[in-house]
Formats: sequence, C-alpha cells, structure tokens
Amino acid sequence: MAMQSIAVQPLTRASFQPFGDVIECDGAEHFEINDGFATRFHDLAALDVQQDAGRPLLNVFRARSRQLPLTIEMMERHPLGSQAFVPLGNLNWLVVVAPADDRGDPKAPVGFHPSAGQGVNYARGVWHYPLIALEAGDFVVVDRGGEGDNLAIHSWAEPIYQLTG
Amino acid sequence: MAMQSIAVQPLTRASFQPFGDVIECDGAEHFEINDGFATRFHDLAALDVQQDAGRPLLNVFRARSRQLPLTIEMMERHPLGSQAFVPLGNLNWLVVVAPADDRGDPKAPVGFHPSAGQGVNYARGVWHYPLIALEAGDFVVVDRGGEGDNLAIHSWAEPIYQLTG
Repeated sequence: MAMQSIAVQPLTRASFQPFGDVIECDGAEHFEINDGFATRFHDLAALDVQQDAGRPLLNVFRARSRQLPLTIEMMERHPLGSQAFVPLGNLNWLVVVAPADDRGDPKAPVGFHPSAGQGVNYARGVWHYPLIALEAGDFVVVDRGGEGDNLAIHSWAEPIYQLTG
Repeated sequence: MAMQSIAVQPLTRASFQPFGDVIECDGAEHFEINDGFATRFHDLAALDVQQDAGRPLLNVFRARSRQLPLTIEMMERHPLGSQAFVPLGNLNWLVVVAPADDRGDPKAPVGFHPSAGQGVNYARGVWHYPLIALEAGDFVVVDRGGEGDNLAIHSWAEPIYQLTG
C-alpha cells in the first residue's frame, strides 16, 4: 500500500477543538493581578486528571530532535487523563492526532504546526503521536498520576502514514 | 523603624524545602520515553490543589518588570492550594517567601534567586510576595480552581522589609 502523507495545518483553537485545547494567551480570558505587575491568562486548558482518584503531575519532557519524513507507525492515548504540553521557549515542533474509527482505533491522522507560544492539551482518550520536536528542547507537561492503566497503543501492521512536514 | 534588607540566596531544594518545591530537572527522577526521543523528568512538584473539591488550573502569568530596591509591604498566601511557577525561557526573577509567626502572620522574609531553568511551587498556605520579574516575561502557573476563599493577604502597617537584590 502506498504511504499516505499527513496534512499539516496551522494550530488554531477551532481546528484543534475535536482533540483538546490550544494553550495560548491570544484570545484567552485574562485579568490584571499583582497591582498591575502581571496579567493572568486564566485556565487555559481543560485539565482532566482526577478520573479514578487521579492527581495532577507537573513534569518536564526533554525532547530530542526528530527528522522528517517521519513514519507514523503507531499512536497512543491516555484513557484516564488529559495531557498538556507547553514548550519552554520558542521551539519548532509538530502535533499529530487522529479521530477514532467505529472500533475505537485511530484513523486518518491530522498534523498541526504550533506557532510561537502555543501549547496543546490532548483531551482524555485522544489518539496522538508522541512528542515531535524538530529541534531539541524542553516542554512543561501536566498529566495524570495515580493507579490504573493510562496508556493504550495502536500499532499499524504495515505503516501507511507519513509526516512530511 | 529602619528598613531591613531581605537576604537573597541561591535557590536550592534544600534551602527552599520549608516553603515548597524547586522545579528543576537536575537531580530529579527521570526516565526515557518515546522510544528514546524524550526524557521524562517526573512529578517535579507536590501539586496540592484538590482540597475542598478543587481542581488544577493551567495559566500563564505575563509579568512586567519590577525594579529594585522593592519594598515588601505585604505578602499573600493561598490557604486552599499550592501554586507552581515555571518561567517560559531564561528569565531573571526573584522569589520572596516567609515563615509564619505564632499568630500565623509572615515574619522575617527570605529571598531566593532562581537560576536558569528553575521554577518554584509554593506549598499550600506559604506566605509569598507576588511574582517578582526583573525583566518582562511569561510563566506557566499551575494552581487551584474551585470554590472557597483561597487568598489571604498580610499588609504591614509600616513597611519594614526591603528587597535590594
């Protein structure tokens, strides 16, 4: 079977809505705090980590750079919690997510290219490819800790999807 | 009364321990993920936001720069939840916290100077001064949302503490 190239589009709240939140200040609810010395951009992601006695974890993912084209041979999802990524600085990275088919497996992956300052929060259970950094860098990650099996993986028997950029 | 200068020391896990967590990769539990394309520095702060049906919030604080010397005329604390700050990039900022006296009021504030890549998580109820950025910049902040009065402020009738840097 011929490899299918995954389309990559700019990351916007509207286009990413089926998969979770875009974490960004532009257009977000905000208000002045600290006697005017800071602006609070408030509650930027629907953190959903308390399922089954879960608790929020704050982590840093230190990503190594990947090269394109990248074969998307598998995808993963977290059935018990959301997972938020915010790049620590202006990094070049890509996001690949997929809707579920009738059996719950990922189908027709979609790519997004975050612009500077944007992060994403994968909603609970959304299929995604692991972090795709096109340059090495650090990300703050907020996800779920606690008991339960919070990782599902789907591997394609024969790779059919490719991310070309 | 003469103004007292607040001593500022380097931020380390040991020195900050009475006040909360230092969020940093150095020395943290970590493991390889994503087929070796990332390292997960795991659970870097004791996020304590579920008190009284609370939930985690992910926010960005956009700080304006403050100038030294800075009079520490008040301090605040969050009785219902922790509050974590991670700078988005290498920013010059200071942290001022204080232990509580017998009446629960702040006494003898202490200053910390984070090095590049360090963040802090104020433990629930710890007295702290609002964000002190010495240059403008953004911080990821994870704190508590939900009902209840989560802000207490102590103002000194006559300013006695000063942060000189």
